[in-house]
Amino acid sequence: MQTISWKDEKNLALLVDFYEITMTNGYMVNGDTNVRVYFDYFFRRVPDGGGFAITAGLEQFVDYLLDISFSDEDVDLLRGMNMFTEEFLIFLRNFKFSGDVWAIPEGTPVFPNTPVITIGASILEAQLIETMLLLTINHQSLIATKASRIVRSAGKKPVVDFGPRRGHGADATIYGARAMYIGGCVGTSNLLAHKMFDIPVVGTMAHSWIQFYSDDQVAFEKYAKAYPHRATFLVDTYNVLSSGIPAAIEVFKTMSPESIKGIRLDSGDLKYLSQESRKLLDQAGFNDVRITVSNSLDEYKIRELEMQGAPIDSYGVGERMMTASSEPVYGGVYKLVAVEQDGEIDARIKLSEDLVKVTNPGLKDVWRLFDNVTGKAFADLLTLKDETVGDTYVLFDEAMPWKKKTAKNFTARKLQEKIIENGKLVHVLPTLNEIKEYCKREIEKLWDGLLRFETPDQYYVNLSFDLWTEKRRLIEENYSKLGRD
Amino acid sequence: MQTISWKDEKNLALLVDFYEITMTNGYMVNGDTNVRVYFDYFFRRVPDGGGFAITAGLEQFVDYLLDISFSDEDVDLLRGMNMFTEEFLIFLRNFKFSGDVWAIPEGTPVFPNTPVITIGASILEAQLIETMLLLTINHQSLIATKASRIVRSAGKKPVVDFGPRRGHGADATIYGARAMYIGGCVGTSNLLAHKMFDIPVVGTMAHSWIQFYSDDQVAFEKYAKAYPHRATFLVDTYNVLSSGIPAAIEVFKTMSPESIKGIRLDSGDLKYLSQESRKLLDQAGFNDVRITVSNSLDEYKIRELEMQGAPIDSYGVGERMMTASSEPVYGGVYKLVAVEQDGEIDARIKLSEDLVKVTNPGLKDVWRLFDNVTGKAFADLLTLKDETVGDTYVLFDEAMPWKKKTAKNFTARKLQEKIIENGKLVHVLPTLNEIKEYCKREIEKLWDGLLRFETPDQYYVNLSFDLWTEKRRLIEENYSKLGRD
Repeated sequence: MQTISWKDEKNLALLVDFYEITMTNGYMVNGDTNVRVYFDYFFRRVPDGGGFAITAGLEQFVDYLLDISFSDEDVDLLRGMNMFTEEFLIFLRNFKFSGDVWAIPEGTPVFPNTPVITIGASILEAQLIETMLLLTINHQSLIATKASRIVRSAGKKPVVDFGPRRGHGADATIYGARAMYIGGCVGTSNLLAHKMFDIPVVGTMAHSWIQFYSDDQVAFEKYAKAYPHRATFLVDTYNVLSSGIPAAIEVFKTMSPESIKGIRLDSGDLKYLSQESRKLLDQAGFNDVRITVSNSLDEYKIRELEMQGAPIDSYGVGERMMTASSEPVYGGVYKLVAVEQDGEIDARIKLSEDLVKVTNPGLKDVWRLFDNVTGKAFADLLTLKDETVGDTYVLFDEAMPWKKKTAKNFTARKLQEKIIENGKLVHVLPTLNEIKEYCKREIEKLWDGLLRFETPDQYYVNLSFDLWTEKRRLIEENYSKLGRD
Repeated sequence: MQTISWKDEKNLALLVDFYEITMTNGYMVNGDTNVRVYFDYFFRRVPDGGGFAITAGLEQFVDYLLDISFSDEDVDLLRGMNMFTEEFLIFLRNFKFSGDVWAIPEGTPVFPNTPVITIGASILEAQLIETMLLLTINHQSLIATKASRIVRSAGKKPVVDFGPRRGHGADATIYGARAMYIGGCVGTSNLLAHKMFDIPVVGTMAHSWIQFYSDDQVAFEKYAKAYPHRATFLVDTYNVLSSGIPAAIEVFKTMSPESIKGIRLDSGDLKYLSQESRKLLDQAGFNDVRITVSNSLDEYKIRELEMQGAPIDSYGVGERMMTASSEPVYGGVYKLVAVEQDGEIDARIKLSEDLVKVTNPGLKDVWRLFDNVTGKAFADLLTLKDETVGDTYVLFDEAMPWKKKTAKNFTARKLQEKIIENGKLVHVLPTLNEIKEYCKREIEKLWDGLLRFETPDQYYVNLSFDLWTEKRRLIEENYSKLGRD
């Protein structure tokens, strides 16, 4: 095998779209090595038409930034292409990220066009880290957002990640489990995610256990022999009601009253089977046996089961959460918003025929406004850096600026925190459990209208008057350069 | 941070659904440590309703099998759970995979219910490797299958992977690029995939390059200064036809005639813009400038562009190939098919009310039958192990056994090869380029009816009469145990 094997390569410095390298070398050739720039990471559309997304993945991105370095081997590979200057190759070999990072904390509900992460660094550094920023934050945000939907569909019932076998490679399962936990899952079947992140791990038996012992009752007896204190029997290998449940009941009778007992249904009509199973278990005096279900579940199926009153105690969700299968792409983008020239910040914009695709230029502050009476968030506000937000504030719709609303009696909270300064971590990153709790609390501050799975209410991300003015100035300046004024 | 960071953990032994561990310990507690079993890996449905899938990922799975070991730390973690016997923990600490693996080569077109991989090993070993087998083969097969569709939609025009920023974590991009290359892509933007697998790497500039230099022409001049011999200019930052193309033409004029020149379109109506761009370029004498397009492409969009005769030279495909977004789940499963008891093979079956979900029991051979006149594959055939396939063969449909067809003048090829024997690699794995070429050749052996994106013809996976007889015997035996005969 000529290739590098699975375990040998975990230096991710070269995990870049090649154009990051060609551009970076190009900036240097053109004498722009030390020009400082600002990039915003944001997204334009909530997956699944939902009301909000959950941002996640910052810790892994920070780990990457603090750690990124190019090896001799990496540099030799590039040297062999005969495209790059030796000066650039030496720069790469000595590369350390020395820029600044501001970010909205992981677990925060976020909305289209809000800058979630802002990078301030030399153009070389800011460009080199683009691909890893995008893939890390896009992936975990996608999965945290999907998990949040699925968890909310289950009400107070626990949802667990059963998805490793359908992940897009090992990382997808590991960091996916992390994102699902942030989004509200209570556990995972992924033992490695348990090891790495201390996420509670669950799992008892597969159909192969039953097939191996040929017979439900024998299989359950064998399991109870190995685990007398805790057993969840998979009851659908042959027939749930005529074989699985009766066998489970027989074996539960042999277990101590204090043992934790459960059954799992993995096929068929989960409403009917859970109801009939519950009856049989209750009739046998096993009201304490918990019913877990699985099998291609998502927020829609779970919502239906809940609406039908299925007596289910917990949900195991696999492929549809692990891959966010209904919409597996999180469209986060990374756009240049300012260039620092001779100490002056020169704002940049990307035009589009579509207003929603025109970027918000320049250095900005990101605020979330909370109503003081209800505690609910009612808008995000983007201002120029260091604008103040007073006690009353006139919000307006960028697309329809005559639509105004005066906000009073609110609290404005800055959403971005400074995470890295001159390449050094300057922020205490929260633990995973803190992120999870914070996520739950922040979702509780959203109006119910945003929580709907379809046709959620729209949340407004407003521009300050000064930012809007600056944006229009740049649009006009650019169109006039194109001869279209 | 209490968590283990990105780079520290690449020991994937613990990447298991936890039930693999609880079952494995359970088998041991019940004295079944040395029982040999057979599992088949197969899938039930081609993604996107296509005519066939492409199997991929075997090399990474083999790497994992040859390498898997549990560290002291792993074992201590499990010991701390107070669920497992010390005998089992010692077994894990000393674990090496010592079983057998048969597999259909990577790059082979495969069909529902054909055993793609068969594992013969102790029940403990066969169970422990399930999760990694599934996630590795499911992921790469999913992406190779999607890539094959996209590449075929582009006819003879090259398709390149632009997807890293949308991958579900780093591995998704790395092994995804590998799978896309097998499926027919000619290159990737992923520099790490280039390093690891020697896949050709491509990339020139992003919109940030243009925004940084504010002006199309200045930006292109700066790029040509850095790369005088090869440049693909991104022409859609402001306006393709009034700014991007005229600026590109001006800069192409300054480049030597031998330089390799191109433009890329990443937004708007790619048919119209490619046509108008081609005209402008040709009028300026730049018939040699290649046009690359990108922007949420997939097999359907590319097919439309090709049918409309868009003068496009190559396609860059991102998110929809990287995530197989139209159907991001590959439903490969791993089922127990036989247990060896006292030297006898005892076939096992998994029942279902749905015939297609009843597994094919026992040890089997997998054949592909090729017509000797056309060279085309016309059926797969599953037989009991060591059945012979003669010069004529009566094929029949399992669901409608009266539907028969006598095959003559054909060649039967065994599809599975023995890859690992007693834990040792016994097969020379092909290089990635060999896999890619083999895949292309094998697809050429399929009838055109299978190559359609929608409503493909159905390919038959038949059972031999003896296997069918054995399957019916097991079904009846199992139903009779359930009191349903």
